[in-house]
Amino acid sequence: MPALPAATAIAGAIEPHLKAVDSLFARELASNLPHVQQLVKHVERFRGKMLRPTLVLLCGLATASDTADNESEDTLTHRHVVLATVVEMVHVATLVHDDILDSAEVRRRGATINHLHGNEAAVLLGDYLISHAFHLCSSLESQSDSRLIGHTTNVVCEGELTQNFNRGNWQLSEATYFDIIYRKTASLIETSCRLGAMASNAPQPAVEALALYGRHLGLAFQIIDDVLDIVGQVKTVGKSLGSDIDKGKLTLPMIHFLANAADSHRELLISLLESPADDRVEHVRQLLMPSSSIAYARGRAQKLVDEAISAIAILPAGPWRDILTEMAEFVTRREL
Amino acid sequence: MPALPAATAIAGAIEPHLKAVDSLFARELASNLPHVQQLVKHVERFRGKMLRPTLVLLCGLATASDTADNESEDTLTHRHVVLATVVEMVHVATLVHDDILDSAEVRRRGATINHLHGNEAAVLLGDYLISHAFHLCSSLESQSDSRLIGHTTNVVCEGELTQNFNRGNWQLSEATYFDIIYRKTASLIETSCRLGAMASNAPQPAVEALALYGRHLGLAFQIIDDVLDIVGQVKTVGKSLGSDIDKGKLTLPMIHFLANAADSHRELLISLLESPADDRVEHVRQLLMPSSSIAYARGRAQKLVDEAISAIAILPAGPWRDILTEMAEFVTRREL
Repeated sequence: MPALPAATAIAGAIEPHLKAVDSLFARELASNLPHVQQLVKHVERFRGKMLRPTLVLLCGLATASDTADNESEDTLTHRHVVLATVVEMVHVATLVHDDILDSAEVRRRGATINHLHGNEAAVLLGDYLISHAFHLCSSLESQSDSRLIGHTTNVVCEGELTQNFNRGNWQLSEATYFDIIYRKTASLIETSCRLGAMASNAPQPAVEALALYGRHLGLAFQIIDDVLDIVGQVKTVGKSLGSDIDKGKLTLPMIHFLANAADSHRELLISLLESPADDRVEHVRQLLMPSSSIAYARGRAQKLVDEAISAIAILPAGPWRDILTEMAEFVTRREL
Repeated sequence: MPALPAATAIAGAIEPHLKAVDSLFARELASNLPHVQQLVKHVERFRGKMLRPTLVLLCGLATASDTADNESEDTLTHRHVVLATVVEMVHVATLVHDDILDSAEVRRRGATINHLHGNEAAVLLGDYLISHAFHLCSSLESQSDSRLIGHTTNVVCEGELTQNFNRGNWQLSEATYFDIIYRKTASLIETSCRLGAMASNAPQPAVEALALYGRHLGLAFQIIDDVLDIVGQVKTVGKSLGSDIDKGKLTLPMIHFLANAADSHRELLISLLESPADDRVEHVRQLLMPSSSIAYARGRAQKLVDEAISAIAILPAGPWRDILTEMAEFVTRREL
């Protein structure tokens, strides 16, 4: 999986803080019970690019110099590290619970937590993560961070419930798709940016600009994720693909295709989506690749990236704004 | 299901507060999304005797008069109502997630949330509840309540993970059984009592006495629940029975039986526990009923109830201490 640009461009400034996040993540989850500790190790499997903690830290750095009473221009506090760890824990919890499959899916898919330890263990491990996320967050002095995290996880749950409710709904509208991806993905990324800026006591316009940046970046990120689920290669994307098709979830390229393709193609896609055949994912890919629907979805993502970059134009020019710009551009450059 | 004694004995004092809990519970969970609201309605199915909120309120009332700066002897605050609602939400979340079944269990059992809406909806509904519990808790002024709730849910998750890890372990020791039921059940009941007293600004010895009361009451409550899962009648217990047997969970009567019964009986119980037959629950019941193991488990529960009552001997005599005593005694009187 490609590293985030931040890791190379400003490694010196951000790496120690990301290491602190990693260390706090492990410390908070550690259990005296060996079988719990054993299961916690599997969590590593779900750790990825650290996008959300990186955004907490970068937004903290981008606004630290705006703060009147800040002693050092680029100093991040313990609060930044705690919040970065909390958002990563929440994110990993959602990945673990996304792994809960119905029995048909278990047959089709390979080794996941639930496959190795049963659905119950996957549910409980996700609960353990979410519980520790809130526990860690409540160690901070103010309730405002906990309140924002709680509000955000409420929204994420509504997004996941809406997505689940619409499984197999081939009439899903683009508006509902955007509502789902805002709630399930962009809201936590928006909150990561907001928390980073808040922890630097940034002025309100800067907080709102970074929140808007996060919101647009989050939407673009999910669209590209959904595109890669159809057209990506397992070895570069680094996870099993076709999972949206397996779960009957329409994503932007499919919604566009169903609205714009010839009737015969439209019917073919629906019959593939409803087919129990193992090779249907490959057939969906072959159907969508030559169409304009992949490019359409990529175009929507690019537009959102542009909006994310515009949103932070009000921040002072400098290395942090540059790296946030690079982060946004990276989203649409993700490899197939 | 029999009402808690509190509901009859001091209905006037506690009923309005329980109604406030009910109302806050519904308000906090309400969603603008119709399909989410629809699913939230199913939560009612999991609502029961309101043991935990009742204990928050009663412990608040029992210690309110001890407080120097308390204006009225029996006044409960908004904080009591919020905390009572939070512990109920956490409890219901655990019930919803307990409902996640593997595919063999789905075949064997009737209509549950997961049966009606799939395992995913049950996972997400539980997540929605736990998220709203933390969100609601973070509306309080101090972080200390959130911190205690977060710590408690960490412990509950460890209990559930330990229980799940030991499914099918016919060598489970009594010590591990008690560790499991402390974590998964008694810890939240202990915390309910502690929070109620803390919200009344009770002196530390009273807080600790009520926490100990809750801990012992919680252990007794779970032992009786486990006894009823074997020997109870569906129509009086009000839920499906034999679920511990279905899930391969050894409970105190079975642990005692395996340690004390004749070899042939011991082997018979294990073969029944490992049997896929539908009528094995009935056979386990017939095997355990005439043995001393049910009485043994009831005796352990009674001893814990006595200890719970002793723990609150340091509280001033009066109606609140009497009703707490009655609550504890009620645990072992629960109907078959």
